Amino acid sequence: MKVFAEPDDMQAESLRLRREGVRIGLVPTMGYLHEGHLSLVRIAREHCDVAVVSVFVNPTQFGPGEDLDSYPRDFERDRRLCEQAGTAILFCPSADSMYRPAHSVYVQEESLSRGLCGASRPTHFCGVTTVVAKLFNIVLPHVAVFGRKDAQQARILERMVRDLNFPVRLLVGPIVREPDGLAMSSRNRYLSPRERRDALCLRKALLETERLYGEGERSAAALRARMETIIRQVDSATIDYLAVVDYENLQPLETVDRPALVAVAARVGATRLIDNTLIGIEENEE
Amino acid sequence: MKVFAEPDDMQAESLRLRREGVRIGLVPTMGYLHEGHLSLVRIAREHCDVAVVSVFVNPTQFGPGEDLDSYPRDFERDRRLCEQAGTAILFCPSADSMYRPAHSVYVQEESLSRGLCGASRPTHFCGVTTVVAKLFNIVLPHVAVFGRKDAQQARILERMVRDLNFPVRLLVGPIVREPDGLAMSSRNRYLSPRERRDALCLRKALLETERLYGEGERSAAALRARMETIIRQVDSATIDYLAVVDYENLQPLETVDRPALVAVAARVGATRLIDNTLIGIEENEE
Repeated sequence: MKVFAEPDDMQAESLRLRREGVRIGLVPTMGYLHEGHLSLVRIAREHCDVAVVSVFVNPTQFGPGEDLDSYPRDFERDRRLCEQAGTAILFCPSADSMYRPAHSVYVQEESLSRGLCGASRPTHFCGVTTVVAKLFNIVLPHVAVFGRKDAQQARILERMVRDLNFPVRLLVGPIVREPDGLAMSSRNRYLSPRERRDALCLRKALLETERLYGEGERSAAALRARMETIIRQVDSATIDYLAVVDYENLQPLETVDRPALVAVAARVGATRLIDNTLIGIEENEE
Repeated sequence: MKVFAEPDDMQAESLRLRREGVRIGLVPTMGYLHEGHLSLVRIAREHCDVAVVSVFVNPTQFGPGEDLDSYPRDFERDRRLCEQAGTAILFCPSADSMYRPAHSVYVQEESLSRGLCGASRPTHFCGVTTVVAKLFNIVLPHVAVFGRKDAQQARILERMVRDLNFPVRLLVGPIVREPDGLAMSSRNRYLSPRERRDALCLRKALLETERLYGEGERSAAALRARMETIIRQVDSATIDYLAVVDYENLQPLETVDRPALVAVAARVGATRLIDNTLIGIEENEE
């Protein structure tokens, strides 16, 4: 496995690979890798000749008071996991090499990024689109793989690829869960044992939504009310949002008469967690 | 000369050329080509195997009340001039193919774009950076060539290339002038014969600045005052700005003790014209 820390070196390697006709698959991460990330590496390897994993805790996607400084980092572990997963290239730039003095250019999505996580994290997605645009230009991937756990992010990046004409195909891998159903996240390590159990309320609420939808419930308000009841039973959980939105434009739905994203964000103790499910989508569409 | 109207077709051609190791030079234009544009095509041809000229009157870089609808267009003439100049590919997309329904992603430069033309045209440069980012992703050039007449634009695009890591080398061609000194511009056709003569005051003011600087004047206020006097003598001319700025960060200078951009924008009649010169730069730096 090759390791590049300098964007210019990584880009030179990618230009060389492209000239040789090698197909590049990129998995952008913030490190502290778990099985969710590694499932994306497998998808990249299936679709490409070489998988590139980027590990970069991107400062521009953290807001004031968020967990940039405490975000978990373990480079040696990430390197080992990447190598075991068959990663060809690990790209691990420093913040200084990614954001030069007087950095002043940002990529901004102005519609899909307003609601859901964007409402409580107003600068987050601008940081995401900016860094992913940079990674696309540095790594020059044919395919980039993102996780469905960050469903809003995936939709925003699909829009970015379309609107800025990036020659990149996006693939979105399914959510990978712990055996008890908790969506894998690097932030799960913040949870105390008690909070770890409490955190299951997010998944429980989403499973209940899937069940109600399966029984014919189409009212978004009814689905949201049931989820709210479930999460409010857990003292340590504070709801940020519970949303049933059109999967295409992420606008709130009253009636689930089209593919819908059901998304939940909540603090469990001090830790902000997100999870989601898609309903109203035929199996073969998803 | 090949002609592409669809972004996807142009991008497929560029991907094919890149796989074959062909070096691509891009000259982005809004059409109604003049010798200034054609000089950029010659620069592209010198540095690359194929020159691509894009002709696209980009709606997002025009503000409300500006001249989007009346901007001069003559596609057959542009095609002929491109062909004569040795252009390999003409890319002439429609606005609908460049901006799809619900377009929502923009590239924004947040520092260099605030002053000069950005002060009176607050949305202009966001349109420019967005469309140029799109053109870079569609045409995938190794080199892109812009004119020095739009000096602020060139600096902003250099910053965009750096900050978003585009694998593109920018070249900036010198201003091409009519025999009497007026900077070539597609908008010169708006001028009445009287205004055409009056428009020379911009160049006259800049030449006077060069002369004063050559004689040792280093006060930006003194240089600006002299330019203002010259332009105010012309009844049909209304100054938008007269600026002496640091060429690096485009911030106003008090003393010209480093490379400086002297830029002027004025309306002559109803037509907004710009021109500029660089001072404090050694010949071999420029």
